[in-house]
Amino acid sequence: MNIILLSGGSGKRLWPLSNDIRSKQFIKIFKKDDGSYESMVQRVYRQIKKVDTDAAVTIATSKAQVSAIHNQLGEEVGISVEPCRRDTFPAIALATAYLVDVKHTDPEEVVVVCPVDPYVDDDYFEALKKLSEQAENGEANIVLMGIEPTYPSEKYGYIIPESPEQTAQVKTFKEKPTAAMAEHYITQGALWNGGVFAYKLRYVLEIAHRMIDFTDYHDLFLKYDTLTKISFDYAVVEKEEKIQVQRFAGRWKDLGTWNTLTEAMEEAVVGKGVLNDACTGVHIVNEMDVPVLAMGLHDVVISSSPEGILVSDKEQSSYIKPFVDKFEQQIMFAEKSWGSFKVVDVESNALTIKVSLNAGHSMNYHSHRNRDEVWVAISGEGRTIVDGMEQKVKAGDVVTMSAGCRHTVFADTELKLVEVQLGEDITVSDKQKYELEY
Amino acid sequence: MNIILLSGGSGKRLWPLSNDIRSKQFIKIFKKDDGSYESMVQRVYRQIKKVDTDAAVTIATSKAQVSAIHNQLGEEVGISVEPCRRDTFPAIALATAYLVDVKHTDPEEVVVVCPVDPYVDDDYFEALKKLSEQAENGEANIVLMGIEPTYPSEKYGYIIPESPEQTAQVKTFKEKPTAAMAEHYITQGALWNGGVFAYKLRYVLEIAHRMIDFTDYHDLFLKYDTLTKISFDYAVVEKEEKIQVQRFAGRWKDLGTWNTLTEAMEEAVVGKGVLNDACTGVHIVNEMDVPVLAMGLHDVVISSSPEGILVSDKEQSSYIKPFVDKFEQQIMFAEKSWGSFKVVDVESNALTIKVSLNAGHSMNYHSHRNRDEVWVAISGEGRTIVDGMEQKVKAGDVVTMSAGCRHTVFADTELKLVEVQLGEDITVSDKQKYELEY
Repeated sequence: MNIILLSGGSGKRLWPLSNDIRSKQFIKIFKKDDGSYESMVQRVYRQIKKVDTDAAVTIATSKAQVSAIHNQLGEEVGISVEPCRRDTFPAIALATAYLVDVKHTDPEEVVVVCPVDPYVDDDYFEALKKLSEQAENGEANIVLMGIEPTYPSEKYGYIIPESPEQTAQVKTFKEKPTAAMAEHYITQGALWNGGVFAYKLRYVLEIAHRMIDFTDYHDLFLKYDTLTKISFDYAVVEKEEKIQVQRFAGRWKDLGTWNTLTEAMEEAVVGKGVLNDACTGVHIVNEMDVPVLAMGLHDVVISSSPEGILVSDKEQSSYIKPFVDKFEQQIMFAEKSWGSFKVVDVESNALTIKVSLNAGHSMNYHSHRNRDEVWVAISGEGRTIVDGMEQKVKAGDVVTMSAGCRHTVFADTELKLVEVQLGEDITVSDKQKYELEY
Repeated sequence: MNIILLSGGSGKRLWPLSNDIRSKQFIKIFKKDDGSYESMVQRVYRQIKKVDTDAAVTIATSKAQVSAIHNQLGEEVGISVEPCRRDTFPAIALATAYLVDVKHTDPEEVVVVCPVDPYVDDDYFEALKKLSEQAENGEANIVLMGIEPTYPSEKYGYIIPESPEQTAQVKTFKEKPTAAMAEHYITQGALWNGGVFAYKLRYVLEIAHRMIDFTDYHDLFLKYDTLTKISFDYAVVEKEEKIQVQRFAGRWKDLGTWNTLTEAMEEAVVGKGVLNDACTGVHIVNEMDVPVLAMGLHDVVISSSPEGILVSDKEQSSYIKPFVDKFEQQIMFAEKSWGSFKVVDVESNALTIKVSLNAGHSMNYHSHRNRDEVWVAISGEGRTIVDGMEQKVKAGDVVTMSAGCRHTVFADTELKLVEVQLGEDITVSDKQKYELEY
């Protein structure tokens, strides 16, 4: 099975765990059988591989997420990088071209497109396989998944099928109706549209070529920023007459807000936290090193990270975005392909950061125009290169780098550094990258 | 006026702002007219000086608080240090001997003893002056302050006077009655016992000499740990027949819990914090650099510091102590006489700390047996002494110190350092102090 996972925007709706560079799908919040935690993207990837070991997974995403994806899923996974945001049709067209031109997948093969963040069981991935098989037999150009509604939601799109069969022709679509209308559609057999569909690669490529003037993946990638923003639903799904839907009745949750996310959490507390007996319906997700104590609260979610602290009534947690948008704050924590960093102290002319490099990884070879830096290695072993000179580094070693000096560090084992940045104008944009010549 | 302020125990009841070394009285939580914040002890000290510029203030406290007191009140204030905790009678006897033997106060002078943490207006200190004058005239050996009760509290002791006059003989004392009994006492003219009283120094010294075998302050200080724990009420107040009470009807609040403390806060938010409109009765006290966002909460206090995060229903906030006692955690923040420190990162074999030294101050000259240290100066100027050698230090400079090496730093301006401690057994007790020879 070929799968394109759409890994969407930054999303501040799960602040303080999600931020401009860490999207909700990378938060490690789901407990695994071995007691460790996995993120939405790790959970979905693991589930796909369980149902189909040979599944070829491609993640369609922005540049900002590439590091986090490699960090969490390894280097194996295919990534179709969108140079900028251009809505779902250009994104899916690019990923489709990527499969054909870069991965050399036969254009007659089927691909299933699905969001990266549904909270589902394994039967959902079995259903994706059936979707793929149905698209294969060619009865329809697109086969959608229709999710059996559990309540007349106002926030989903509805698919109305011709018949109540397991696989049926699509009659029409209805976008976000009122609860009363939704109820009416459901009596007619309407299904939720979860944004999941299967098609033969050639089919979408042909539509793309009709709509966009391009030769191949590389050409499409280069002119991506000139493309018109248009959704896949609008460009393809709603115009297609040979379109079917397959019913899916298993668990399906959209974990878009703290309210729905906490419903999917197996434990009340992730991280250091204590609830007294007078608490009911309280969830704590604490990414800090210090404890959270909750006393006598009801239906409240508490989440803390190096970015900030949210304490919200669960219902009210859907409304945090405008408040979070107003917080003007630098990124305090990020996962990169080579490890992670955390800002531990902020002064006006000095920033102190803990950098953790995974074994075998290194940061880019780079310099800064306006700041000096000091590294104090606190654990592990590695090698620094400063202005071309390589030196071994281990816990306790200190490296000083003046502004303009080119530097990087390789981790031979997991390596942790305290980095002190010093200067009057410290910004993440003050960074020149260089090729390292060997 | 002579005043002894009793500055009591550590108090975890205002965790995470109070901890084993920072008591609640040092938390800067009260907004001043100039927009800055002051602590309970700063507020009380300022109020005393406003009512009586010449007031001689002595703070009776433990060794652990000396740094914080000098940091917040300066070097002028007298401090009677209790070598260990021995309840209020030994503490008051020691402070009384300190006034006579160290400060050379005439034993015929009067002193007023009062807790350091009442939340009161200036009229309270005017009342202390009257208490002092009344003790001066010698009608009684002790003159207590009796606070007009505002409700039949079960948590205070009651003083029942002989008459309803402003100054009256004390008839009897009643300890923490039921609400019904308290109501009954109040109809009899009972007053709350706020632990405030005035006496002539000689009077308490004589009782102390009768109860304890000692020659002077120095001798009492040396044998302090052998003294029996006994309260001043039990040892003196309840046995004295020549005892009067003066009524006080002004504002008086005991800020022992988050519930009562937040009642005394002028603003809903201290530090970085945002409440949405759906919040009612919510207070935020945030000592961290990152924001707190509260959504749809009612009668909740949120407090965060480098020690942890409390989110509590206000009523329930009285019950946090047993939970906090279970948190096994190192001190993450402290104010010292020379400045302050904050733990910014904790790893198993490395601890990163931000040290802020006030201009003109230095830490002790010291060494560590089991850890190396690295200093990175991030702002200001000063001088380090490492194994006897002095060197200038400014932002960007790095100093490395191996285990065993003696070191200190003097701040010529306000000086901030990032200190990285490295070793397998990092504890605050691993510290040898030395005299610095010049």
